[in-house]
Amino acid sequence: MEAPTLWQDIARIREQAPLVHSITNYVVMNSTANALLALGASPVMAHAEAEMADMVGLTHTVGGALVINIGTLSPAWVAGMGQAMRAAAQQSVPIIFDPVGAGATPYRTRTCAELLSQTPPTIIRGNASEIMALSDATTTTKGVDSNQSTDAAREAATQLARAYSCVVSVSGATDLITDGEATRTVPRGHALMPRVTGLGCTASVLTGAFAAVNDDPLAAAEHAMWVMALCGEIAGEQAQGPGSLQMHFIDALHNLDEDALKVRL
Amino acid sequence: MEAPTLWQDIARIREQAPLVHSITNYVVMNSTANALLALGASPVMAHAEAEMADMVGLTHTVGGALVINIGTLSPAWVAGMGQAMRAAAQQSVPIIFDPVGAGATPYRTRTCAELLSQTPPTIIRGNASEIMALSDATTTTKGVDSNQSTDAAREAATQLARAYSCVVSVSGATDLITDGEATRTVPRGHALMPRVTGLGCTASVLTGAFAAVNDDPLAAAEHAMWVMALCGEIAGEQAQGPGSLQMHFIDALHNLDEDALKVRL
Amino acid sequence: MEAPTLWQDIARIREQAPLVHSITNYVVMNSTANALLALGASPVMAHAEAEMADMVGLTHTVGGALVINIGTLSPAWVAGMGQAMRAAAQQSVPIIFDPVGAGATPYRTRTCAELLSQTPPTIIRGNASEIMALSDATTTTKGVDSNQSTDAAREAATQLARAYSCVVSVSGATDLITDGEATRTVPRGHALMPRVTGLGCTASVLTGAFAAVNDDPLAAAEHAMWVMALCGEIAGEQAQGPGSLQMHFIDALHNLDEDALKVRL
Repeated sequence: MEAPTLWQDIARIREQAPLVHSITNYVVMNSTANALLALGASPVMAHAEAEMADMVGLTHTVGGALVINIGTLSPAWVAGMGQAMRAAAQQSVPIIFDPVGAGATPYRTRTCAELLSQTPPTIIRGNASEIMALSDATTTTKGVDSNQSTDAAREAATQLARAYSCVVSVSGATDLITDGEATRTVPRGHALMPRVTGLGCTASVLTGAFAAVNDDPLAAAEHAMWVMALCGEIAGEQAQGPGSLQMHFIDALHNLDEDALKVRL
Repeated sequence: MEAPTLWQDIARIREQAPLVHSITNYVVMNSTANALLALGASPVMAHAEAEMADMVGLTHTVGGALVINIGTLSPAWVAGMGQAMRAAAQQSVPIIFDPVGAGATPYRTRTCAELLSQTPPTIIRGNASEIMALSDATTTTKGVDSNQSTDAAREAATQLARAYSCVVSVSGATDLITDGEATRTVPRGHALMPRVTGLGCTASVLTGAFAAVNDDPLAAAEHAMWVMALCGEIAGEQAQGPGSLQMHFIDALHNLDEDALKVRL
Repeated sequence: MEAPTLWQDIARIREQAPLVHSITNYVVMNSTANALLALGASPVMAHAEAEMADMVGLTHTVGGALVINIGTLSPAWVAGMGQAMRAAAQQSVPIIFDPVGAGATPYRTRTCAELLSQTPPTIIRGNASEIMALSDATTTTKGVDSNQSTDAAREAATQLARAYSCVVSVSGATDLITDGEATRTVPRGHALMPRVTGLGCTASVLTGAFAAVNDDPLAAAEHAMWVMALCGEIAGEQAQGPGSLQMHFIDALHNLDEDALKVRL
């Protein structure tokens, strides 16, 4: 990754402050909103059907993206998600879909399949277990953490990208991003990152911020994973455990500049 | 602001530990509960209609306030909000209303208008965009962050305060508090504060704590904004970014004493 | 408490990474998930009826526990809780029940009574006010914080443990754990801990992690409270207020090793 290329997108996010509309899980609402603000984007959380079309319309007007995350799904929320995805597709608002816990229960896997088949997203972002569950119902997910290596998910990611004509971004020790043809990897990050809840969900909302300012979803997804990895490294070097890593990670997102990118890359 | 006047209310909060019953958004439940505990108040989050009358009754009995925040509204929650507001008004429990994202969608603006017209609150606390949306539906809010200066909201705040016979507290680089006649400003704080999610919502719950111990809602709202501004300054001086600011802000609320107030004021 | 005994359970949690399925309140979802990850367990949050049987089945298959916490209860969530508890009992998955705010409103006290009488849990973990409310409806809880000493709850805890043939774990300045016959106490911790929201709820999820690796619920509950108390002490010694205590507490859970246990115990 070239530092100027990555920096260009970060600078755009800071200038344009894209609106990232998330329908996400209860666990990560605070931490993902803080990550977006720290990077320079503008978060909004809204899920009620009564305002889905209007909120997506606002996102279209001011510029932004829609992030769907099924982490704590229930029927009323899934209805709002479907409505928002349809509205976003109609208005060409980028859609990032995070299938948290897909494969853990049939309800999760089935809900993902229904939402994705109704409205193919711009980018699917998950861990290896989730990506494999979406492309092949034979794998079993243990909870919401990954128990599959990113390598093992390479084939599944390619299949999934082709099936929905989208980009698939798989987080892991080495992140993998593919549009079904080209594949990029991000072999960076910090070992403590999986010990902080919701950093995968954070990757999804940051992917939304990048997709809002970069029309190439493969590049947007890759840039987001680079920012995750580099800020994870910066935070990990200062942290004394996962509690302080989370704090330093937010600070690192805020303080990231072109010089730091050059040094790290 | 005189330090002894402000300190008197803080000391009362620490002595009486008023119960601040919040029906608020998912994003800020943890951070606002921690802010209340750090200042010395006692938070409770409850939204089910089945317990609204009883929870408000308990707040009345032990002393406290009701804080309504529509940040992640949905019909079931709005029903609980309306019920709680009516019960609070009947029992003279102070009501603080935070119209998060008013103006962003018609559903938000309409819901606020309905709740406010049914039960005028003691204090409306929002940012400039939200306050202008409530008093004039012609402005457009971008997400839940403000895109209007506090000055531009002065007239709207005054109109709104008169319309509902309440106090309006507008956060911004300079906070503005008015009862429709008298106006107070708090020209302090720290530039990083808007980069932390939910500090506006935190201002609302702290306003609830002050309203619980001070019968003058104009003074209560002003005192809350002073505490926000001063703790924001203290935290900002120690912070390396918005992640550490959030942590130091909570510590500052806990450690605030009369000497610190005198030095800062 | 002997350090090797306590360490044995912690080592098991780190090796087995038990799945702790929580149906808990919105306020603490992030902080309790982070506490579980920091200790070495694997958190999952899920509440929809459509996946309750499957998620409990997964917990049974991979090893884990179910934690029910009524902090922000509503009818739809209570339905999911009841369903999950029945499934867990059928499959011998340990159930930890946290009656947040029991006694504050009749709805809370009644809901607890219904859930507990339908499916007696393995361990009830609450503060003194809540435990007294469950065993005797004559006490009044102020919000969700305790206003009863642990000593005053001793009799109530014993009665409750006998009524449901379960272990009762009462947090306070001195924690008390009883199975209705034997009683253990944990006279440690840090004075700032009650100023951080959700540390009681954190005690409940950690109790779930210990119950997943230790068949003796009295020992599991006691071990969890020791870990809470010791990590609270470690964090308290480094903290400058409740904000930094929360961060250091998570770090301490992650860094806890046998040597630290020996020094502290």
